[in-house]
Amino acid sequence: MSLGKFIVIEGMEGAGKSSAISVITEALKEQSIAFIQTREPGGTPLAEQLRDIVKSASHEETLTQETELMLMYASRSQLLANVIAPALNKGNWVIGDRHDLSSRAYQGGGRQIDDTVMETLAQVTLKGFKPDLTLYLDIEPAIGLSRAKARGELDRIELEQMDFFERVHAKYKALADKDDSIVTIDASQAMDKVHQDIRLALQQFITQNA
Amino acid sequence: MSLGKFIVIEGMEGAGKSSAISVITEALKEQSIAFIQTREPGGTPLAEQLRDIVKSASHEETLTQETELMLMYASRSQLLANVIAPALNKGNWVIGDRHDLSSRAYQGGGRQIDDTVMETLAQVTLKGFKPDLTLYLDIEPAIGLSRAKARGELDRIELEQMDFFERVHAKYKALADKDDSIVTIDASQAMDKVHQDIRLALQQFITQNA
Repeated sequence: MSLGKFIVIEGMEGAGKSSAISVITEALKEQSIAFIQTREPGGTPLAEQLRDIVKSASHEETLTQETELMLMYASRSQLLANVIAPALNKGNWVIGDRHDLSSRAYQGGGRQIDDTVMETLAQVTLKGFKPDLTLYLDIEPAIGLSRAKARGELDRIELEQMDFFERVHAKYKALADKDDSIVTIDASQAMDKVHQDIRLALQQFITQNA
Repeated sequence: MSLGKFIVIEGMEGAGKSSAISVITEALKEQSIAFIQTREPGGTPLAEQLRDIVKSASHEETLTQETELMLMYASRSQLLANVIAPALNKGNWVIGDRHDLSSRAYQGGGRQIDDTVMETLAQVTLKGFKPDLTLYLDIEPAIGLSRAKARGELDRIELEQMDFFERVHAKYKALADKDDSIVTIDASQAMDKVHQDIRLALQQFITQNA
């Protein structure tokens, strides 16, 4: 039995990750490819506890950026060991709402944590594991954030200043440009066109891999 | 106003850390030195949540050693930023029940995580901060564990195998030997003698620093 594939959807607030995931899961169902869905941070009972701590905007105490960083990788290690790896080994595909690229962009780019530190943490927790395909939904921060704000309450990270999101965006683009397993989708297009681009990228990947 | 001093008590299960801390706090009270007490992992509301996750022996899911490692440093970052540093800056002393040396011994030695990884994590979260004095209570693992078992229920880490504790012990000793700020106390002696050694080491430190 062949191993499953790990496909990750990445992008900033308001880029349209949720509807992109629906497009992908519909396409997999049509082709009878068995899959599970994950989200990061979170995805296991313990990792969801850590997600609550990271996301909450109302702590009695300030969350240091180093604590945030450690909790992201603690969550990722749990999810990989207890959910993603077992699913792939059983031949199921895994559709991830965010993965390590998010930490590289938000903590590495946004919080300006050194690349060597990010690399060490990824190496310790992931040991070279990476997604087979990442669909990065690219959008200008101002547009994405205005969409996200229209949806309602913002979490602790979404309350950051604009220069933070500009750094996240720049890091996302730089990392996407130099990694062949990351396909950049222009998320500023009309939704029909965005979804069409996602279906095309996915179909090309399936044709090459399934 | 001068800065406070950070004194840490270290050692394995059953080494007698709690009574050592009582000896120290009594001596500080006698000399009217203002202090607070901390414990690791934990010591802030958020860090205590992380402590519960790390200590619990009954998770629905297995805690990976990388998650354990990240949670230790997440907790340490919170405690340093929100409790230890502000106390020292106000001139109070801080008496710590464990600090970074525990991670070096348990995760570095016991779990055999690379020294370079441990060094990176310490650098990221502590940025060169270290205790002014560490009292390391040295005891053979077999003796310490039999004392700890006599006290009652063991937590997840205390349920490890003997070779794990032998590695922890070897790492503790190696690190204590090469750091002048760590005083090794022979915790296998009669309790009166152990406490006398602690008082002597503390008094020498106070004479030099207060």
